[in-house]
Amino acid sequence: MVATSATATKCQLLIGGKWVNSDATEHQEVYNPSTGEVIALTPMGGRKDLDRAVEAAHKAFLDWKEVPVVERARVMFKFKALLEANYEEIARCVTREHGKTLPEARASVQRGIEVVEFACGIPSLMMGESMENIARNVDCETIRHPLGVCAGIAPFNFPAMVPLWMYPIAITCGNSFVLKPSEKVPLSSMMIGDLLSQAGLPDGVFNIVHGGKDCVDAIIEHPMIKAISFVGSTTIAKYIYQNGTAHGKRVQAAGGAKNHIIIMPDADIEQTVQALQASAFGCAGERCMAGSLAIPVGEAAEELIPQLVASSGKMSVGPTDGDSNPDMGPLVSREHLNKVKSLIEKGAKEGAAIALDGREIAAAKADKGFFLGPTIFDHAKPEMTIVKEEIFGPVLSVVRARTLEDAIEVGKKCPYGNGAVIYTNSGRSAREFKRHFNAGMIGVNVGVPAPMAWFPFTGWNNSFFGDLHIQGSEGIQFYTQQKMTMTRWFEPKNASFQDPIWKPKN
Amino acid sequence: MVATSATATKCQLLIGGKWVNSDATEHQEVYNPSTGEVIALTPMGGRKDLDRAVEAAHKAFLDWKEVPVVERARVMFKFKALLEANYEEIARCVTREHGKTLPEARASVQRGIEVVEFACGIPSLMMGESMENIARNVDCETIRHPLGVCAGIAPFNFPAMVPLWMYPIAITCGNSFVLKPSEKVPLSSMMIGDLLSQAGLPDGVFNIVHGGKDCVDAIIEHPMIKAISFVGSTTIAKYIYQNGTAHGKRVQAAGGAKNHIIIMPDADIEQTVQALQASAFGCAGERCMAGSLAIPVGEAAEELIPQLVASSGKMSVGPTDGDSNPDMGPLVSREHLNKVKSLIEKGAKEGAAIALDGREIAAAKADKGFFLGPTIFDHAKPEMTIVKEEIFGPVLSVVRARTLEDAIEVGKKCPYGNGAVIYTNSGRSAREFKRHFNAGMIGVNVGVPAPMAWFPFTGWNNSFFGDLHIQGSEGIQFYTQQKMTMTRWFEPKNASFQDPIWKPKN
Amino acid sequence: MVATSATATKCQLLIGGKWVNSDATEHQEVYNPSTGEVIALTPMGGRKDLDRAVEAAHKAFLDWKEVPVVERARVMFKFKALLEANYEEIARCVTREHGKTLPEARASVQRGIEVVEFACGIPSLMMGESMENIARNVDCETIRHPLGVCAGIAPFNFPAMVPLWMYPIAITCGNSFVLKPSEKVPLSSMMIGDLLSQAGLPDGVFNIVHGGKDCVDAIIEHPMIKAISFVGSTTIAKYIYQNGTAHGKRVQAAGGAKNHIIIMPDADIEQTVQALQASAFGCAGERCMAGSLAIPVGEAAEELIPQLVASSGKMSVGPTDGDSNPDMGPLVSREHLNKVKSLIEKGAKEGAAIALDGREIAAAKADKGFFLGPTIFDHAKPEMTIVKEEIFGPVLSVVRARTLEDAIEVGKKCPYGNGAVIYTNSGRSAREFKRHFNAGMIGVNVGVPAPMAWFPFTGWNNSFFGDLHIQGSEGIQFYTQQKMTMTRWFEPKNASFQDPIWKPKN
Amino acid sequence: MVATSATATKCQLLIGGKWVNSDATEHQEVYNPSTGEVIALTPMGGRKDLDRAVEAAHKAFLDWKEVPVVERARVMFKFKALLEANYEEIARCVTREHGKTLPEARASVQRGIEVVEFACGIPSLMMGESMENIARNVDCETIRHPLGVCAGIAPFNFPAMVPLWMYPIAITCGNSFVLKPSEKVPLSSMMIGDLLSQAGLPDGVFNIVHGGKDCVDAIIEHPMIKAISFVGSTTIAKYIYQNGTAHGKRVQAAGGAKNHIIIMPDADIEQTVQALQASAFGCAGERCMAGSLAIPVGEAAEELIPQLVASSGKMSVGPTDGDSNPDMGPLVSREHLNKVKSLIEKGAKEGAAIALDGREIAAAKADKGFFLGPTIFDHAKPEMTIVKEEIFGPVLSVVRARTLEDAIEVGKKCPYGNGAVIYTNSGRSAREFKRHFNAGMIGVNVGVPAPMAWFPFTGWNNSFFGDLHIQGSEGIQFYTQQKMTMTRWFEPKNASFQDPIWKPKN
Repeated sequence: MVATSATATKCQLLIGGKWVNSDATEHQEVYNPSTGEVIALTPMGGRKDLDRAVEAAHKAFLDWKEVPVVERARVMFKFKALLEANYEEIARCVTREHGKTLPEARASVQRGIEVVEFACGIPSLMMGESMENIARNVDCETIRHPLGVCAGIAPFNFPAMVPLWMYPIAITCGNSFVLKPSEKVPLSSMMIGDLLSQAGLPDGVFNIVHGGKDCVDAIIEHPMIKAISFVGSTTIAKYIYQNGTAHGKRVQAAGGAKNHIIIMPDADIEQTVQALQASAFGCAGERCMAGSLAIPVGEAAEELIPQLVASSGKMSVGPTDGDSNPDMGPLVSREHLNKVKSLIEKGAKEGAAIALDGREIAAAKADKGFFLGPTIFDHAKPEMTIVKEEIFGPVLSVVRARTLEDAIEVGKKCPYGNGAVIYTNSGRSAREFKRHFNAGMIGVNVGVPAPMAWFPFTGWNNSFFGDLHIQGSEGIQFYTQQKMTMTRWFEPKNASFQDPIWKPKN
Repeated sequence: MVATSATATKCQLLIGGKWVNSDATEHQEVYNPSTGEVIALTPMGGRKDLDRAVEAAHKAFLDWKEVPVVERARVMFKFKALLEANYEEIARCVTREHGKTLPEARASVQRGIEVVEFACGIPSLMMGESMENIARNVDCETIRHPLGVCAGIAPFNFPAMVPLWMYPIAITCGNSFVLKPSEKVPLSSMMIGDLLSQAGLPDGVFNIVHGGKDCVDAIIEHPMIKAISFVGSTTIAKYIYQNGTAHGKRVQAAGGAKNHIIIMPDADIEQTVQALQASAFGCAGERCMAGSLAIPVGEAAEELIPQLVASSGKMSVGPTDGDSNPDMGPLVSREHLNKVKSLIEKGAKEGAAIALDGREIAAAKADKGFFLGPTIFDHAKPEMTIVKEEIFGPVLSVVRARTLEDAIEVGKKCPYGNGAVIYTNSGRSAREFKRHFNAGMIGVNVGVPAPMAWFPFTGWNNSFFGDLHIQGSEGIQFYTQQKMTMTRWFEPKNASFQDPIWKPKN
Repeated sequence: MVATSATATKCQLLIGGKWVNSDATEHQEVYNPSTGEVIALTPMGGRKDLDRAVEAAHKAFLDWKEVPVVERARVMFKFKALLEANYEEIARCVTREHGKTLPEARASVQRGIEVVEFACGIPSLMMGESMENIARNVDCETIRHPLGVCAGIAPFNFPAMVPLWMYPIAITCGNSFVLKPSEKVPLSSMMIGDLLSQAGLPDGVFNIVHGGKDCVDAIIEHPMIKAISFVGSTTIAKYIYQNGTAHGKRVQAAGGAKNHIIIMPDADIEQTVQALQASAFGCAGERCMAGSLAIPVGEAAEELIPQLVASSGKMSVGPTDGDSNPDMGPLVSREHLNKVKSLIEKGAKEGAAIALDGREIAAAKADKGFFLGPTIFDHAKPEMTIVKEEIFGPVLSVVRARTLEDAIEVGKKCPYGNGAVIYTNSGRSAREFKRHFNAGMIGVNVGVPAPMAWFPFTGWNNSFFGDLHIQGSEGIQFYTQQKMTMTRWFEPKNASFQDPIWKPKN
Repeated sequence: MVATSATATKCQLLIGGKWVNSDATEHQEVYNPSTGEVIALTPMGGRKDLDRAVEAAHKAFLDWKEVPVVERARVMFKFKALLEANYEEIARCVTREHGKTLPEARASVQRGIEVVEFACGIPSLMMGESMENIARNVDCETIRHPLGVCAGIAPFNFPAMVPLWMYPIAITCGNSFVLKPSEKVPLSSMMIGDLLSQAGLPDGVFNIVHGGKDCVDAIIEHPMIKAISFVGSTTIAKYIYQNGTAHGKRVQAAGGAKNHIIIMPDADIEQTVQALQASAFGCAGERCMAGSLAIPVGEAAEELIPQLVASSGKMSVGPTDGDSNPDMGPLVSREHLNKVKSLIEKGAKEGAAIALDGREIAAAKADKGFFLGPTIFDHAKPEMTIVKEEIFGPVLSVVRARTLEDAIEVGKKCPYGNGAVIYTNSGRSAREFKRHFNAGMIGVNVGVPAPMAWFPFTGWNNSFFGDLHIQGSEGIQFYTQQKMTMTRWFEPKNASFQDPIWKPKN
């Protein structure tokens, strides 16, 4: 159904169970970031494409919601088996269109499969509550109903995983779904879309459209779309949340972040160095849960920073789609590479000390692929741009703090609130950090505190807009609405009933 | 603290535990609708008043959130006892400023107390979830945190009850609260505010401001307010939801409704007549759960309508603050009375048959109080204004339907979605109605399917804006956000630990 | 691994992942009830066999409980896929050793697979509860721990399904398991045991032993077995419960039943006849949920009984392992056939009217297979043996009642309490029946109210001994115990911590 | 209603809302342990008394179970207020009949009140689960029903608190209750029984009988008692569990314990000394959660033991019913005092080193009251009687361990499993201890890890017999049984329905 690298096929839409052409006239290039080659073209569709998809989705919804939840879950069981059977192929597709290393791609697919596993348990998770005789002869209960057509708008950094955060839950709840993958990385979702059909999902329950802002606006404005799930930058998350809610939709919109890693003097330095390096430079830093701000407390910095710089300096950087197995791959695009480089320059200009400079690697590989090496700023200050803004590249800033209290205060000023981690052996330090740090996902000696699918992905502040988070029980609540019923039965009066009916006497 | 009828005292604000004067220069009159007398003046405060209240609330929040939930609940236990001790006085205050009958006022206070009872169970309801060893040596858990300062904006129709839907839950969750009662009925909430202080609630956790649109806008825009609960008309609910969410707040906003009562041919007509009359004319129809649209199916109308008209015609209407114990009281204000009367005229003009005309009573009592009698339109059509719009007065429209299916289709076209009721003896009819009617609160042989406090008040469509409803477990989720923690502990390395530490072997 | 029909191979034990021979010297014959042929020999093992199995199970438990629950669930995902891949083969094995029709066997395997589906959702279902700061600086949480080695003792009537009620849940909870299938039908469980190994379950987590009372007693007395699940007759259920609990074990023991079917005058007679026939004669009545006692109320009997007798009289009865697709198969053994026939004789002697006599079919097919046709007694009385005792064969007794109240009173005197069903169109009759009938599983217009795996199988009275039922959330609680932790952290004192530690100030 | 100290009134029974005389001929003396005076006489009733109480309880149950759960909870709200109003009086009664200090008595009453608070939340906690359309047109739900008459058998060590663990939950679940307080301390429960009546509990829902083993056996054997809650020694707990379950009852029976306190070398010694002293000698050691076995790890002992001995040696011991405010009161009786002293002698004989000898205080006060001072054995060994057996007096044994692993191994050999505590600052040590120690209630830096009422009291091993623990959600499950309903509605056929009924078409 999709592009081979040479000729750059145009991506099709999945509508009503069929791959069809877009009405779009413009297209955007999809690259292999390891080589700079164009591997596909994404149609920049808009309202016309979307209308077709929503119409198909709504039609499918009317039947799908009547399918018992137990049977809906069974489609997910088959889908999981198919994802596993195609695991390596999907991971390679992710690597090819996004650039992350194959082990990183595999791990991300695995995380996505876990959401499908979670969704398989939905019969238990969708149960309503009931109370008989809440008042004399009156019974009360609630039931969770699906919403209708839901839409997902996905970012470029996890081509398979982030969409999988959304539709498995939406669909098993009884909704139909329209996915708009990132126009930069549409291929993995298309591959997976085929698997959903193979799993027996009725036509039209899952649909794919392509595009950019026009398509997003069409989603926001379409009256039959009841809910939007979004993951991306804070700016767009806020835009979608404000405009989506203004159009009467439910919205869960996850945005950017600046994730703080506090290192206490009693931390295990060796383990911390490893975890910090993985957290800061994994997926080339293109993660909303990347540990991009290290805050060593007290004397912790003395031992930590030199070890971290030395270890990070040894990371190999290179193309991820070949046999070289580098430690880190390229960034997603040349534009993004340039943006990250300019932020590094800004950091240097504002006075932070470059302890490790990844731009040398970038220079060495400038002819093909979008490479940048691990970069570490020491002695950064809270007011610097590199500390305040999300860089979304392999750049770690180090702000030194005197006490845990000071470190927590740094966090209070941060407008974001995704992840925050403490490295310590002390139960007390961990407890105070966990209770008081101003972020929704807390790690204790854990590099990237992204919860597994059974728990919600609980960003706070400007890292999330909405009431109900993605994944876990909140994910299920997001895609359903409760209906409450109060029931009373009078004693029948018509003759045929009168005598045989039971009159309570105990 | 507050007005006696003669001199019309200005209402004060409750800020930081003290009753203080407003900065407002303008005031609005509060009436006794049974007599038309002015009984108090509401200051039309704005940003200045609000800023003081929020400052006090935020200060109180910082301590209050550290109080264990078990202790917070204990304030509610005392509050419940005080509400019960002052039950009659509160009910009389409700009747005096709103006009509903004393039995109706008592029932509404009772419903409010039930929310306090529900909030007393919060230690169980706020529990997080935990999973040890979700991955090898990694534990995961979630905890519910309060949001900060929350605000409530209340309508005129339930002076005590609707505010009580909000703050008992918000406060026991660990938030502080600013309440803006309706400028038409501020007195009951002020009386209750004193009880909260007596119950031992720390100063500043609960605050009261007064005002109209300026005050609402100040609430919407204040950066330290994290959540808004609103009950009122759909127009304002939508306004507050759109603007509140645009300002990054959580909003739950309950709006208006047009609640359908379907009567099947096998219904118990006698019971239905009683319930329908209470549903349509209770609280003079000023209820978002009022049954304002009756849809008899098939031959049900023949027996039902005459009985209903006869029975409703016998209802006594009069002042509710004296000794006459009328069946129905006045409307809240002369403006509202006039608005309802003009809708009745419109209904007549559009061709509906006036089976019972409440304007005669209005005429008879025109000199004092804002009275209107029960009014019934038969043979109304779905496209008439009286069927499409919420009247919020004692006016019942009857639309006849051929089948249950037709009746459900009428509901599908309704933009609202609060309550809907079926009268039937048939399990099958009830099940189909319950499952397929397009509203969130379904009654079976129940006049007003408003859930008790342990269940959420689940309006749908334009009757509710937001993801998490008022009351019940959704109420608790609305006023809290989850924090997720993943914890791993490395083996300590420092000498004093090394030997005695346990190495797992089973 | 197991017998072919000709030579009657001895069944082996599954211990520590290997099929091994029993130490038993005696064996019991396994029949194909459709032909009377011996198809296998079950070793009547005892303590020695069991000790080996428990030792292997305990060893496996020590590692298995450390496997994260998410990974344990994944074994169940694979197991489900393997059960589906071998669906037809298992169903044929069930039919061959038990005699039920192939459609009945298939349905039973499907029901068993549903328990595996339920168990796949266990990460959500095993979560503990947590409350931070339950007292100042003290946090509290609970975690569910597995118990250790659990055992299952299964009946003959559902060779695959009933064992599947037990071990998928026990195992995903982190326990290891020893299954003793019925000595009459050991083959299906052995076939399925192989699939568990193929699914990747570590050796020793699931084990099979064979035998009769000696083996049961060994299970009861073994100190390392922590819990026993049993399904069978009430006599043995009570024996196992009393002796198992006396040995400090958890026991859930489901026993026999006499399930009442009340038919109201307003029931849909056509649907009721179909459902009642399936309920009474499905699986040849060898079901603890069989509808064996029909109670038509008032004039309901007049239309119902003749139609039921006519329809049941047309059922074909014959061998189920060939191509004839009969409506009903044989009973499980000649002994059981004779026991049922003698109860029919007793019913006739005690004065009930035989409206349909299945013994004629039995006579016609006496040479091979253990056949008995559908039998209906009309005008039975509560004090007759056929009404009081469980027959566990295709025998339906009809007791006529004047009112619903009378029918409910009949139920109050019944010592059992599994299922009870009402046929009616009236919501009120259904509500009163549901609320007041003295049984744990209530059906409304449902032939056999056996819950799907997501709900517990809630027998009452002498139909169940224990606190926590099989399946659903109670099943999970049965196989786990809670551990509660209260945690407080003091402020560290040693010098390296002192300064950098955070002191809360908000 | 009850004894004054001089004349030693005979305690009456509370049956059906009235205080009545026992049929017993024998009586046991109730002492004030601070003085040795007889303050009341407990009738040693048996079957005749019990039969009267159960009859009244069953009669009351039939109405009480029909009272909506919301209204049942309201009795608890009033009961809580009355307990608080009589707080000091109850505490003094506890002190007077049991001997513990007034602060200890007050704390125990407070703990009991918390169970009442928990029970007030029961409407949320008793909700059933529901799933609409679990199969096409079939809905499924569960409802929790009360069991019937439940009984509580209480120990002497917490005259008010332990009974309050039981009946508030049982009663709000809809059961009626018969309490047998300890014959040593019947007075507090009688005082509280009056408050339940004042709270509006209908007559007969709560009843009190008095007696010893005869009364216990009568409870075990009475066919109308459905559940027994017990707290006491392991021997009797096992007896009641085995015999109660053999009689078809639910039983939750909490027994004795030997609670381990592990102190790591990194523990805060000052805090540990305080907590350990309170844990070991609070309530004179008469607590099933008393920390009676200290296990310092590695060098922890060196600093800890001398400080602990010094601090404990300074505790004042004396009468608790006067003005002297001692740190510790007497034991409950002379017999018990002698038993504890003989165990101390045994410890000395078996070779443990007496670091602090409480027998000196005993000698000094031998003339009146049953006093014994704090006693500490150092260098005790796991095989000594004082380590293996529960002493239930102010005796702390110290077993030194080399590593945490060794300490955990000591715990594995202990037949009990109530509480276990670790003192440490290390997150890792705490996590390993919490996960692997063989007991159900774990404390981290918490002296007595008894959970508050919202969590279950989760004893393991020989410290608890049963499946469902006391308090928390398990407490509610213990006192209720689930009823499952599957509902399907056929399309009605009778003429009056046919046309108007709805046929689903979406």
